[in-house]
Amino acid sequence: MATPNPAPKHFTLTYPQEYVAHVEINRPAKMNAFFEEMWLEMRTLFDALSHSPDTRAIILSGAGPRAFTTGLDVKAASTGLLNPDSDGLDPARKAAHLRRHISSFQDCISAIERCEKPVIVAMHGFALGLAVDIATAGDVRLCAADTKFAVKEVDIGLAADIGTLSRLPKVVGNFGWVKEVALSARVFGAEEALRVGFVSGVFEGKEGVLKAAGSIAGLIASKSPVAVGGTKEILNWSRDRSVEDGLRYTSVWNSAALQTTDVSAALLSGIQKRKPTFEKL
Amino acid sequence: MATPNPAPKHFTLTYPQEYVAHVEINRPAKMNAFFEEMWLEMRTLFDALSHSPDTRAIILSGAGPRAFTTGLDVKAASTGLLNPDSDGLDPARKAAHLRRHISSFQDCISAIERCEKPVIVAMHGFALGLAVDIATAGDVRLCAADTKFAVKEVDIGLAADIGTLSRLPKVVGNFGWVKEVALSARVFGAEEALRVGFVSGVFEGKEGVLKAAGSIAGLIASKSPVAVGGTKEILNWSRDRSVEDGLRYTSVWNSAALQTTDVSAALLSGIQKRKPTFEKL
Amino acid sequence: MATPNPAPKHFTLTYPQEYVAHVEINRPAKMNAFFEEMWLEMRTLFDALSHSPDTRAIILSGAGPRAFTTGLDVKAASTGLLNPDSDGLDPARKAAHLRRHISSFQDCISAIERCEKPVIVAMHGFALGLAVDIATAGDVRLCAADTKFAVKEVDIGLAADIGTLSRLPKVVGNFGWVKEVALSARVFGAEEALRVGFVSGVFEGKEGVLKAAGSIAGLIASKSPVAVGGTKEILNWSRDRSVEDGLRYTSVWNSAALQTTDVSAALLSGIQKRKPTFEKL
Amino acid sequence: MATPNPAPKHFTLTYPQEYVAHVEINRPAKMNAFFEEMWLEMRTLFDALSHSPDTRAIILSGAGPRAFTTGLDVKAASTGLLNPDSDGLDPARKAAHLRRHISSFQDCISAIERCEKPVIVAMHGFALGLAVDIATAGDVRLCAADTKFAVKEVDIGLAADIGTLSRLPKVVGNFGWVKEVALSARVFGAEEALRVGFVSGVFEGKEGVLKAAGSIAGLIASKSPVAVGGTKEILNWSRDRSVEDGLRYTSVWNSAALQTTDVSAALLSGIQKRKPTFEKL
Amino acid sequence: MATPNPAPKHFTLTYPQEYVAHVEINRPAKMNAFFEEMWLEMRTLFDALSHSPDTRAIILSGAGPRAFTTGLDVKAASTGLLNPDSDGLDPARKAAHLRRHISSFQDCISAIERCEKPVIVAMHGFALGLAVDIATAGDVRLCAADTKFAVKEVDIGLAADIGTLSRLPKVVGNFGWVKEVALSARVFGAEEALRVGFVSGVFEGKEGVLKAAGSIAGLIASKSPVAVGGTKEILNWSRDRSVEDGLRYTSVWNSAALQTTDVSAALLSGIQKRKPTFEKL
Amino acid sequence: MATPNPAPKHFTLTYPQEYVAHVEINRPAKMNAFFEEMWLEMRTLFDALSHSPDTRAIILSGAGPRAFTTGLDVKAASTGLLNPDSDGLDPARKAAHLRRHISSFQDCISAIERCEKPVIVAMHGFALGLAVDIATAGDVRLCAADTKFAVKEVDIGLAADIGTLSRLPKVVGNFGWVKEVALSARVFGAEEALRVGFVSGVFEGKEGVLKAAGSIAGLIASKSPVAVGGTKEILNWSRDRSVEDGLRYTSVWNSAALQTTDVSAALLSGIQKRKPTFEKL
Repeated sequence: MATPNPAPKHFTLTYPQEYVAHVEINRPAKMNAFFEEMWLEMRTLFDALSHSPDTRAIILSGAGPRAFTTGLDVKAASTGLLNPDSDGLDPARKAAHLRRHISSFQDCISAIERCEKPVIVAMHGFALGLAVDIATAGDVRLCAADTKFAVKEVDIGLAADIGTLSRLPKVVGNFGWVKEVALSARVFGAEEALRVGFVSGVFEGKEGVLKAAGSIAGLIASKSPVAVGGTKEILNWSRDRSVEDGLRYTSVWNSAALQTTDVSAALLSGIQKRKPTFEKL
Repeated sequence: MATPNPAPKHFTLTYPQEYVAHVEINRPAKMNAFFEEMWLEMRTLFDALSHSPDTRAIILSGAGPRAFTTGLDVKAASTGLLNPDSDGLDPARKAAHLRRHISSFQDCISAIERCEKPVIVAMHGFALGLAVDIATAGDVRLCAADTKFAVKEVDIGLAADIGTLSRLPKVVGNFGWVKEVALSARVFGAEEALRVGFVSGVFEGKEGVLKAAGSIAGLIASKSPVAVGGTKEILNWSRDRSVEDGLRYTSVWNSAALQTTDVSAALLSGIQKRKPTFEKL
Repeated sequence: MATPNPAPKHFTLTYPQEYVAHVEINRPAKMNAFFEEMWLEMRTLFDALSHSPDTRAIILSGAGPRAFTTGLDVKAASTGLLNPDSDGLDPARKAAHLRRHISSFQDCISAIERCEKPVIVAMHGFALGLAVDIATAGDVRLCAADTKFAVKEVDIGLAADIGTLSRLPKVVGNFGWVKEVALSARVFGAEEALRVGFVSGVFEGKEGVLKAAGSIAGLIASKSPVAVGGTKEILNWSRDRSVEDGLRYTSVWNSAALQTTDVSAALLSGIQKRKPTFEKL
Repeated sequence: MATPNPAPKHFTLTYPQEYVAHVEINRPAKMNAFFEEMWLEMRTLFDALSHSPDTRAIILSGAGPRAFTTGLDVKAASTGLLNPDSDGLDPARKAAHLRRHISSFQDCISAIERCEKPVIVAMHGFALGLAVDIATAGDVRLCAADTKFAVKEVDIGLAADIGTLSRLPKVVGNFGWVKEVALSARVFGAEEALRVGFVSGVFEGKEGVLKAAGSIAGLIASKSPVAVGGTKEILNWSRDRSVEDGLRYTSVWNSAALQTTDVSAALLSGIQKRKPTFEKL
Repeated sequence: MATPNPAPKHFTLTYPQEYVAHVEINRPAKMNAFFEEMWLEMRTLFDALSHSPDTRAIILSGAGPRAFTTGLDVKAASTGLLNPDSDGLDPARKAAHLRRHISSFQDCISAIERCEKPVIVAMHGFALGLAVDIATAGDVRLCAADTKFAVKEVDIGLAADIGTLSRLPKVVGNFGWVKEVALSARVFGAEEALRVGFVSGVFEGKEGVLKAAGSIAGLIASKSPVAVGGTKEILNWSRDRSVEDGLRYTSVWNSAALQTTDVSAALLSGIQKRKPTFEKL
Repeated sequence: MATPNPAPKHFTLTYPQEYVAHVEINRPAKMNAFFEEMWLEMRTLFDALSHSPDTRAIILSGAGPRAFTTGLDVKAASTGLLNPDSDGLDPARKAAHLRRHISSFQDCISAIERCEKPVIVAMHGFALGLAVDIATAGDVRLCAADTKFAVKEVDIGLAADIGTLSRLPKVVGNFGWVKEVALSARVFGAEEALRVGFVSGVFEGKEGVLKAAGSIAGLIASKSPVAVGGTKEILNWSRDRSVEDGLRYTSVWNSAALQTTDVSAALLSGIQKRKPTFEKL
């Protein structure tokens, strides 16, 4: 198994199915609120899973009954990110320190997006602030019927800067709704999240959403890892570029990927009506 | 109050709530149809509100019971924009004059988008042609149940050139629907507008939609103006660029914005369970 | 009539209404599965229709009761595209051959997108793999209630490389759903396609969807061809670029297009309450 | 003549040749150093010339024997731009004010670039700081042998923000040299400017450079204004975009521009060996 | 040999060295001036050479002693491109016809750029108008000392629309010089072309430049065709995109290309001090 | 001093002047050829210097009399990068491994570009292959008169993939020359490098170039670090984007940076004719 060494402190990593990793944010006593050590560790973890040959799909959820995550641990942040080691600095120097902090923080969350394996985000309870940044960096979002979401940042006097404002408009197709929830910080529920396309499915309770996530992850993990990895990469590349640049990149990518033995394995299995087996990647 | 001086002729500007400006298109006898002087004035007005310290959110609606606006005053346009002072000019010179007219017209509507304060567009009755260009330049769109929309331009022999074709596909997430209504010029109603995400809410009558707009505007106006302004700016920037460029811009923007006293004001108010007060911007 | 010469072998071309071309994929015995000669012919056909003065809107559908198309004829492909004349070549040389194949294939499908006339894609029965690539290159998508869709490619070990991954995220506004269906290759039906905005309408049976397509195509064909052509072009250009670049391009485009006599023809017809007639383009 | 009304206070505008405007920065007692009123006026002036039918080429130079311009009037700036009406504001609010100031200032200099008519910048003596921002916004740069240039901004503690850092790397093809002079603020002379391509020609004294500028401007003014305007526009558009987007924009632009009567006028004059006359634009 | 079938009428194709194709524009009686049939044929020819396994480098020159090419055959154009079959059409319809003509013409010249094999352009005598469009689409430009260049288009009342305005600023690093020669249409010679980097070398007479071109082409043809093709492709891709997008594309491209046997062939030959042999591509 | 801990093994780091770091590639016995451990260490080193408050400018050179660096240690690479742990893998899986290797390698070299402090690259002797990748990632390039350069990669059967092909065309303004040296792998000397703008200065011997580099680095280090850092960042951002996006980013950046106390320190020192002192950053 691809357990990182040393094992993560603030996350649990298990393999409930073959090739399916389950990452759990593990600070339930604080409703999985994040402080700096946690997001640094999350980067290390997803960077490792990205290249792990034992992992073909990933589920990300939160420990405990109450929350996926309530976001930034504001108490910790007010002595950290929001108040860097910058006393006595002029505003320009303080800005330089803040910029480095924000860039590092963004990079930790982007580790989910750049991870070569699809990430299914399974949410329940509170999913506030940073929860939305994390969710939009994932590939598929599911939630329990009781989930309470909010792009909470304006309520603490700042624009969401770890990814929500850059990714949410590309994840859902309703720019007016994005603006409304981001400008007002109001809470929205599972049904609204489903209606606008922020989540793809709503399920009963934490168990329900985890089961559904397991089902999708298992299905993805049964496919050719070459095809799955290419599909995630090309979709993310194309999102940010013209159709023309998307097509060109795809042709270059597939000029190598089509040389996989997975194509004949898949075709043969289809003819023989049996489940194909694919080499590790 | 930030009443522009001189006061606008074709719009009314009121402040129904603290920090909430209400701009009304004021030509009800002609169903608020636009002629050139009106869009030039609209630019002046929104450019002023953009920097007005007394304004934190804006509602845009149409006067009278019948229409948000029926769009371009075709009669006026046929002696103006669609027939510029170009008689005797060869087609290339006529094209140069038309290009200047269109660019100026586009810039007037874009004033709504570049306005630093969020604009809630509250529509009722007829909302045709230019109405859609204006609405897509706003941030949040609401409408009364009786609203009749149409991307009307092909019906007068032209492609919509003041913003609808550039912005509508980025506002709603259904490109086939955008093409169908833009190519056919057919009328669509409030429920369809809600279903595709062109509007975020449908309300009873003009009063209903104005009340809802006031509620959202009031909520936004109660937040930190630094956070709200940054949120609008970063969302608009990110819409047109890659996630990577969005993240970088965000980190630079927030390196200054996080130095606001609003963060501690908001945090303290949260602890003290009271409404924060923010300095003017 | 603009029947290409020689007539296509694998497609039928008819004109059920004035200015409305109906292109039918015509290999019903094989459920309209594609082999190379077919997509090359499709390019020739759409390139001809693009400039045909007798064509103002196009319907694309599949012959026979069972399928729009089941996609790539895998049997043919396994001796062709997926196995190019590359035996004995090293992987880099094989990649060069594959890249050329893919680019040519992509270009054939893109012929639908670059066609100056709107293309209404009317689907029924199976619409798998390449069917989705083709549909996303069209302008408006409709389907029968019985249609079964799948982004099937990962099931044969490859990432969809003929357009789906580049265009589907720009056609629908639910990136999580796109990822889920593209990563899992699961089948989805008409109602789901409607809900996420992949199709604009669901109709009873093949007859129902063709009738609806005819209705939209006829409506579009009754409009100014200058306005319609400009609308398609500007929408496609703007999809891939910033609002600012969209607006500038629009102003340049319309500086010529507004000089059409269609504007006065349309305005006059509006006043006289009669159907306008437009010159060929 | 297209003399703006009212006449500019800090610039002189003359027409030394038919269709050739000469704009002179006119504050020689202060070596043509700029304060805010001057750059606002410069925008008004170039916006007017852009549409003036009597103007086909523009020369920009500095009055007096000593300087094109020494740049920002630092004394004025230190009570203005560098010290906005922002006392008591927190750094985020101060940043908002600064951003508005900088954007407005940038827009004034960009008026030279967006002016539809080519601008020949003729420099002599000191050309420091803002001088380089202005020069890079022009189309052709010439200088007297005695000219002393510097990207002076780091010497007053700031990064050049009015255009030099965005435009200079696109004007010359030596990125290392750009970095060296921008990072060190060192003075460079006419010969070095010529060698790296910052200027196209070096001439004897202010008279020499003005004569050479007049010669180029006169030559350009003798050409078809449709062709000249299109050439400037397409070159600027293409600079910032891919070759593919450049070609497409060009084809749309010229689809109107080629319909000018100037083409036949030019061809006929060529055959008849006489100077063509072109209508005003 | 990869002689296209049928053989070109207006070009000669020879192989003076192994793997080096020499394409000669062959209309010396008219100083190699182009009419439509010629540029269509040029596209066919370069598209064929692009995939020809016998071709690893291409020299492009003009037949006869007097000119590389004097550009567009204006007499032919004035009954063709500049006067399309558009009599009686309104300006918008005429624009559509012109746009199609220009796009097709551009595509023919772009065939040189998209050709997978490097193209060395060897010029002598007159190289006017279209000559510059063609030359900038090539990879390396050389000329005889007597060559007379001009971006001639403004002299016939139009902006150069077949590639010069999009490509020349990316070929040379002196934007002011580009603007000056494109706005003035003035003639410039070989030395000036060398100084600004439009050509890489100046040689004595047509023989001299052809010999030098042969030398470079021969050197390139002796290298791994996988490495050479990748180098041309990545350089062209990167020219139009950010460094970041260039690096990513490169990594994807080389993930297949590095699997060539050419790497070990080249390394082994280096050790053995002998000339490597590479398989056809 | 900001000596990284642990100290680098393959590089020496010294501070010959206040705030000026000197990084020396330290493998002279192998002419400073690189193997994987070295480029990983180089990333760590430049990432540390980027945030080091004691460093305001960096000189990068090679140890020993014979070479800046001869590039990739081909012997090491042939058992590493060019032959990854991929035996028995199909070409698609091998491509995935290669892509990860290349991306990591590129990221190590890009550390020089993203370093907040300017990097002066001082070259002598052989500067082959990877040497050019490294040099183009730096800010200013200088060399000794004896330096021998080559974009050597095609000679070992591959396209240069660590940065040269993406950055070199943006560093020099002669695209034909770039193509010629990259396609032919021919050696070029110091004078040619100076003429095309690859280096900014040529000096006598290694001592000469190091002295010149020290002079420029010292000058830069004497300026405001806020101004210097902003200048490098904005120049790199603008290189890859439109002028418009460059200007906007600049205004946001400087809205914080102008609030530095360095502006008043610099202005005051100017008046008092003394050297200013700036706080650490």
